[in-house]
Amino acid sequence: MTHSARPLLRDLFDAAVAAADPHLRLPGFLPEVPRGRTVVVGAGKAAGAMAQALEVHWPGPLDGVVVTRYGHKVPTRFITVLEAAHPVPDQAGVHASARILQAVQGLTADDLVICLISGGGSALLAAPAPGLTLADKQAMNRALLRSGATIGEMNCVRKHLSAIKGGRLAAACYPARVVSLLISDVPGDDPAIIASGPTVPDPTTFAEARAVVEKYGLQDQVAAYAHLCAAQDETPKPGDARLVTAVTHLIATPQQSLEAAAKVALNAGITPLILGDSLEGEAREMAVVMAGMARQVRRHGQPVAAPCVLLSGGETTVTVRGKGRGGRNAEFLLSLVHALRGDDGIYAMAGDTDGIDGTEDNAGAILAPDTWMRAQSLGLSAADHLANNDGYGFFLALGDLIVTGPTLTNVNDFRAILIL
Amino acid sequence: MTHSARPLLRDLFDAAVAAADPHLRLPGFLPEVPRGRTVVVGAGKAAGAMAQALEVHWPGPLDGVVVTRYGHKVPTRFITVLEAAHPVPDQAGVHASARILQAVQGLTADDLVICLISGGGSALLAAPAPGLTLADKQAMNRALLRSGATIGEMNCVRKHLSAIKGGRLAAACYPARVVSLLISDVPGDDPAIIASGPTVPDPTTFAEARAVVEKYGLQDQVAAYAHLCAAQDETPKPGDARLVTAVTHLIATPQQSLEAAAKVALNAGITPLILGDSLEGEAREMAVVMAGMARQVRRHGQPVAAPCVLLSGGETTVTVRGKGRGGRNAEFLLSLVHALRGDDGIYAMAGDTDGIDGTEDNAGAILAPDTWMRAQSLGLSAADHLANNDGYGFFLALGDLIVTGPTLTNVNDFRAILIL
Repeated sequence: MTHSARPLLRDLFDAAVAAADPHLRLPGFLPEVPRGRTVVVGAGKAAGAMAQALEVHWPGPLDGVVVTRYGHKVPTRFITVLEAAHPVPDQAGVHASARILQAVQGLTADDLVICLISGGGSALLAAPAPGLTLADKQAMNRALLRSGATIGEMNCVRKHLSAIKGGRLAAACYPARVVSLLISDVPGDDPAIIASGPTVPDPTTFAEARAVVEKYGLQDQVAAYAHLCAAQDETPKPGDARLVTAVTHLIATPQQSLEAAAKVALNAGITPLILGDSLEGEAREMAVVMAGMARQVRRHGQPVAAPCVLLSGGETTVTVRGKGRGGRNAEFLLSLVHALRGDDGIYAMAGDTDGIDGTEDNAGAILAPDTWMRAQSLGLSAADHLANNDGYGFFLALGDLIVTGPTLTNVNDFRAILIL
Repeated sequence: MTHSARPLLRDLFDAAVAAADPHLRLPGFLPEVPRGRTVVVGAGKAAGAMAQALEVHWPGPLDGVVVTRYGHKVPTRFITVLEAAHPVPDQAGVHASARILQAVQGLTADDLVICLISGGGSALLAAPAPGLTLADKQAMNRALLRSGATIGEMNCVRKHLSAIKGGRLAAACYPARVVSLLISDVPGDDPAIIASGPTVPDPTTFAEARAVVEKYGLQDQVAAYAHLCAAQDETPKPGDARLVTAVTHLIATPQQSLEAAAKVALNAGITPLILGDSLEGEAREMAVVMAGMARQVRRHGQPVAAPCVLLSGGETTVTVRGKGRGGRNAEFLLSLVHALRGDDGIYAMAGDTDGIDGTEDNAGAILAPDTWMRAQSLGLSAADHLANNDGYGFFLALGDLIVTGPTLTNVNDFRAILIL
């Protein structure tokens, strides 16, 4: 088994990514071809690939426009694929969002809008509400991030500063029927949260958004606060007549990707244990906890007996203290190297299913029992690299980065710890 | 089931503590009564209780001296129980260590020394090597803690500055036979690490201890460094003739306590899953990871189906930023409250099996689905208390502290997350 541990880990990752591939997942969720037009809109890291897959499998005429991240465009024939900035929005995103809102104007009840939504869509759908600029929204967003507001509070404010989020896109499509196909990268797979729910009713109100701003004393964000106080044009609420025919399908989720990897492990004679599809926490600390679990497998055959693989998804946090390179997954693995110190029989991989770990060119990296000794022989200190947040540099020097390029889908991070 | 979740969690904790009770564990490990004298020595949080249990069950005459933490003394008839400071050593510990070394002088091959070792013993056995003061040792210890040295490197230096650690106590007993009875509170249950292994051979050398000090540039610890350079009287090495007859028994371990709790859960119809007996990491981050696992049980029935309980042992870390009160377990639970936000059906408890969470009067605390709402109605913010490291204050206000007093044993922390 030992000699094939590395390729097995790579197979698990590839299976997780494949399970979220729009070309494989999307055909099962296509609605009936309408009597009228079919207009396609969408946003997210997978928007280009979803548009391409839809074109291939759609039996009728269609046209439309979607926005994806720079570098994530793919060839299409009928749907325009625009690119914009992520995670910090730019004017290209503002332009793309305006094009999307324009594309759904003047439709009838005989028409169909297919909305292709995936992770990253929130930043790419940068449509400030009338009277606001992108700079106004971004300033409030930064203030919220510093304020200690919960994610729910932040989303409430964001939706009320946007011309497209919180169900407004679906409302703009009325009276056309709206079918949303979603690839989830969020805990709980809530359609109202994925890309800030452009086609999902929003139960929160202007009054609540105002209360959040006042609670954290952010009234000095003058333009945004004034907009919330004016409180015109509320987001569509649950039961809104314009959205009652809207349908939402989750076509890919982190859990499905974990299940796909689990199946590959089972076929290889390895017991899979799925710990969670949306685990969070500081990356380096999660690694310490999981190192303890891996050792428990070795010492006591718990929580399951070896050979086994501990699988998890979800987005960790990296508190940046150093100046090194690398995303969440490299940081997680580097801490795991440090915690395990070459423990026998323990392998691991971690990667972002979108193919880009943070802002580097790698999807993730791989760890083997010999990583510790090989690093020492190269004069690489895991502790020093960890102090410098330099997971990328560490695994680059070892030749243990996993590079896939953009996968054109996104079900968040994937981690596998293999214990033989 | 719901109405009995709290008492069940308390039962699990009590079972974990009982599984490490010297009165229950020690009788199974008693050696033959010797032809000569039986001398009892020892150190640790459980030393008093172990001495008491030994007196009750020992069929022959005995005498001796052990040292335990202030407040942990219990009545004994033949064995003197001294008290000293923990975790920072004091002169009472120096005095007690000298008494212990004196007690094992002049023994013969017909005599038996029973050495009772438990967690905390390292601080209580404060015996500076000849020529050094307690202040010298403590200064070096503080410098090591700041230096980034690994625990293995620190222990190597500590053993070479001590007159009693690293096997020296066993060597002092020669030619008497030495039987050590240990209660483990360390990952891996290595007898050389528990209380710094006073009766276990030490493979490390003065040269290595010197190299550690030089590696981290701590030569300004003049007295301690000079002692390491003089390099006389090496610690007993594996194979040392004075220690070849020494025997070591682990009479209680964190794993055994987890297994005992698992049995109680099973009997209550709850599936236990032991995640690890020595999980480490920052307490608040471990809680975030485990909140994700608990939610996975609720949403996907993984890694096991509810009703289940996730059990773990091992010592977390708390990076103190605030001025609040509370130990590792209160911090863990407070972060769990914050991460779960009152998720339905999830209960938890965490406590130190020694009965003292950090430096407070509680062993731990308890969390229920209503904790979040009850805290809000009292105006208690979990986020604010977490920022202030005030887990004790939070659970005190809720009436949810678990108070046992010193349990007179110690198999480290115990955590249980119950998902119904």
